[in-house]
Amino acid sequence: MKHSAIDSLLSQMKFNSDGLIPAVAQQADTSEVLMMAWMNKESIIETLTTKQVCYFSRSRQKLWRKGETSGQVQTLIEMRLDCDGDTLLLLVDQKGVACHTGRRNCFFYAYRNDKVVEISKPLMDPNQLYHQ
Amino acid sequence: MKHSAIDSLLSQMKFNSDGLIPAVAQQADTSEVLMMAWMNKESIIETLTTKQVCYFSRSRQKLWRKGETSGQVQTLIEMRLDCDGDTLLLLVDQKGVACHTGRRNCFFYAYRNDKVVEISKPLMDPNQLYHQ
Repeated sequence: MKHSAIDSLLSQMKFNSDGLIPAVAQQADTSEVLMMAWMNKESIIETLTTKQVCYFSRSRQKLWRKGETSGQVQTLIEMRLDCDGDTLLLLVDQKGVACHTGRRNCFFYAYRNDKVVEISKPLMDPNQLYHQ
Repeated sequence: MKHSAIDSLLSQMKFNSDGLIPAVAQQADTSEVLMMAWMNKESIIETLTTKQVCYFSRSRQKLWRKGETSGQVQTLIEMRLDCDGDTLLLLVDQKGVACHTGRRNCFFYAYRNDKVVEISKPLMDPNQLYHQ
């Protein structure tokens, strides 16, 4: 029953030629945009089933269970799909920080007054993130 | 001076093999995620120069000046780049609706209780959007 519902959702999605779809992660309560990553069918099924967000790593070419190494997991609150079925919005509850640099979100380079400036500082030491 | 600043920003960006980078548009004051679309270098330069958001349409293979036909323009408040330089976050002020269906944002299919449900209704008649 649940599986056929997920199949129905998957059938509405348009995957690119690599079988991937972009997913924007947004903190559900504050609406902060945390990061963008890619998902394949398998990672979508796992995410909906476990409620722990799992992406597909393009560099490593395998499932990327967010926070598996760092502990900075994302719990899925709701998955949304856009009008033309080619982008996902994940409402999540991010534990700790989303960015591998130790920042809360990945979008910390801003173009202001004709300069690129860093608008946030790491909340955690990135060297500690992957050696806990 | 300004042009070299934009060149510096562009040099931090990683474009895909089609010369494109995904851009997430977020309403600056409410933090609502409106849509995701793609930009190329030319559209980024135009957006930063004019402060009116211009994407690159993959289906039409040309610059897509958001709202040019519909009047539903996006004014750029700030452009941000993520940690690894391959995704943009555009803080914008969206006039009217962002979605071609007449909805405020494009992410209106939600997966809830094992079903896909539409969580918002059009605020404008999509037939009117393109025949004003």
